[in-house]
Amino acid sequence: MCRKNMGIIALLTDFGLNDNFVGVMKGVIWSINPEAKVVDLSHQIEQHDVKEAALLLKSSYRYFARGTIFLVVVDPGVGTERKSIVVETEKYLFVAPDNGVLSFLIEKDIKRIIQITNEKYFLKPVSHTFHGRDIFAPVAAHLSRGESIEKFGPAMKKMEKIEFSLPQVENGRLVGEIIYVDRFGNLITNIDQATFLRFVKDKKFQIFVRKRKISKISSSYQEGAGGIPIAIFGSFDNLEISLYRDDASQCLNLHKGSKVYIEKAQGQN
Amino acid sequence: MCRKNMGIIALLTDFGLNDNFVGVMKGVIWSINPEAKVVDLSHQIEQHDVKEAALLLKSSYRYFARGTIFLVVVDPGVGTERKSIVVETEKYLFVAPDNGVLSFLIEKDIKRIIQITNEKYFLKPVSHTFHGRDIFAPVAAHLSRGESIEKFGPAMKKMEKIEFSLPQVENGRLVGEIIYVDRFGNLITNIDQATFLRFVKDKKFQIFVRKRKISKISSSYQEGAGGIPIAIFGSFDNLEISLYRDDASQCLNLHKGSKVYIEKAQGQN
Amino acid sequence: MCRKNMGIIALLTDFGLNDNFVGVMKGVIWSINPEAKVVDLSHQIEQHDVKEAALLLKSSYRYFARGTIFLVVVDPGVGTERKSIVVETEKYLFVAPDNGVLSFLIEKDIKRIIQITNEKYFLKPVSHTFHGRDIFAPVAAHLSRGESIEKFGPAMKKMEKIEFSLPQVENGRLVGEIIYVDRFGNLITNIDQATFLRFVKDKKFQIFVRKRKISKISSSYQEGAGGIPIAIFGSFDNLEISLYRDDASQCLNLHKGSKVYIEKAQGQN
Repeated sequence: MCRKNMGIIALLTDFGLNDNFVGVMKGVIWSINPEAKVVDLSHQIEQHDVKEAALLLKSSYRYFARGTIFLVVVDPGVGTERKSIVVETEKYLFVAPDNGVLSFLIEKDIKRIIQITNEKYFLKPVSHTFHGRDIFAPVAAHLSRGESIEKFGPAMKKMEKIEFSLPQVENGRLVGEIIYVDRFGNLITNIDQATFLRFVKDKKFQIFVRKRKISKISSSYQEGAGGIPIAIFGSFDNLEISLYRDDASQCLNLHKGSKVYIEKAQGQN
Repeated sequence: MCRKNMGIIALLTDFGLNDNFVGVMKGVIWSINPEAKVVDLSHQIEQHDVKEAALLLKSSYRYFARGTIFLVVVDPGVGTERKSIVVETEKYLFVAPDNGVLSFLIEKDIKRIIQITNEKYFLKPVSHTFHGRDIFAPVAAHLSRGESIEKFGPAMKKMEKIEFSLPQVENGRLVGEIIYVDRFGNLITNIDQATFLRFVKDKKFQIFVRKRKISKISSSYQEGAGGIPIAIFGSFDNLEISLYRDDASQCLNLHKGSKVYIEKAQGQN
Repeated sequence: MCRKNMGIIALLTDFGLNDNFVGVMKGVIWSINPEAKVVDLSHQIEQHDVKEAALLLKSSYRYFARGTIFLVVVDPGVGTERKSIVVETEKYLFVAPDNGVLSFLIEKDIKRIIQITNEKYFLKPVSHTFHGRDIFAPVAAHLSRGESIEKFGPAMKKMEKIEFSLPQVENGRLVGEIIYVDRFGNLITNIDQATFLRFVKDKKFQIFVRKRKISKISSSYQEGAGGIPIAIFGSFDNLEISLYRDDASQCLNLHKGSKVYIEKAQGQN
């Protein structure tokens, strides 16, 4: 990466906003680099839900400026032997515990993985419970000042991976599932647009969720006026099931993990 | 407007803070103008509640520096034919969907209304579901860099309006209603101080809410010590009904839409 | 204090994030000092809970850069005769209502206490209900521009104090209590590490909470795998009772105010 340092640090944690955890991390960052720009991606990740953090980061990071440092602290293994890492891609840096939260990064995009071991950059004494404050925030702050990545520790070949559920073709149907529910109750599936098009081609199709059937892709939420569930490719670039001005999750009783089936109509094109 | 550009962008949305919507908008803003200062007015507007957004913005904007750009995304019509606009007043710029959310602006304060049509400023492809990211954030960011307003599209004569409930005199009583409940349970009515004084003049009066009667205007919440409901002109500059250290909404069972009646006492002055 | 002004203002309030209170305070700050950096410590203090605000601030402030201005608005007495103050320590400034919220500051660290009386720095008219906007935010903003502290009003000898519950030795046991529950359900006690070590020395010990018994101090949450409650010195530097990946408050039915007992084991060392 030709680092064009913008000094932007984007935070993603499961700390919530009630406690002082996030504020203290920002205090630490600014005490090391008063010029850093800090932005909150979200702090409301479900506690310890590494997969949800990965999903949100995956659908967010490409909207940020080259050089942005993503600081991810969803860290159920804090205080154990799990490693801490910096991952460098062509455009970005990621600072996180090595627990799979960066699994969404594509192999060929990764330039370097560094294990964070250099205690020179840590706040001391390092607590057993809050590496966000004592390790990750200081490391991100020093990176934002332009410190070289190799200074933080030795290179690693691989990082931890977690498996994401992917849509599967079973008995001629494309079977996906709901992987996220947003504030509006929109149901985001794991079926991305490319996979959908590859399966459906130019045929007619039907989407089944619980007892509902949807036969087209809409181009605005408002097409669901009157309480009809719609399917739309939303901001995650994945297929969403939505109700206009209503909470699809509540009204249709669909949740994370609920299945979605796509069938091609018979004898048509 | 003699634009003294401060580069401040104030965000008001119904996106909440759980999802990545707000963080991504900030990512977009800073990738266009790394010098922009971004402030959150609120992201907890009730979903799709254009009227509540208008109310909060109305009672907030004058506390911001000249040149502040207000970026409002409460947008139930996203993906439909509803327009996107920039409104210029003497001191401020407002970027919003044309759905009435700026109705509180007074005709004579408005210098220009521009319809946002110039796709040059959009993120592409423009999604059907997230114009906050693809249209409104980039436009606000370019404005904060000093881009001229007329570059974003053609002038419009009028924008959409929504009606706000106003206090009315009925059978000799001033009838208002509760339009907002804050975190403390304070009940904000639509009766502003000028309307109240014009009605009451120098007479004694009684304020009726549900079965309670209040006969004076207090000058601190603490006057309600002991559990007595008080009336006070609060930070919205409107009449509020409050309980000291208690939630008036819960305890008095009063909510958005509940009526408030003011009677002048007979034969007194 | 040799003021090395960083222009950082850290906000701590009980305003929540639904209303526009926090956003408006930031608007006021930036209209006075566009260069100020504003960071949210928390806005989710329980309404009017001066003690909780003091606790969070106490465990946070030392992570911030020298010169940081802490702006605390937890203010049940707004509109009454309670004073407003600026407190200067060697490294920091604190702006707050004089209601005990700064009681955690140690006498010898305090350089000066100033009563805020100079109306020149206030927003006018000063409301009866929102001194955060009309007094505290403008004062903090002017301080962040380097205005001298003595300009805001006369020196005071003392500020209001509130009592914090401290662990006590009773019948040979150290008796503490839970003073805070964080987002993860970790139970933070009022027993700090020094007090614990002074009591336990090199003896074996048992910690009793409700019907549970804990016989050691853990060094990671994960030691509680399998649903066993652990004791750990956490980020508050106090003894915490925790469950690994579970909510100790809910599962053990322990809350703010619940007692914790520490006994030294008999005849051992």
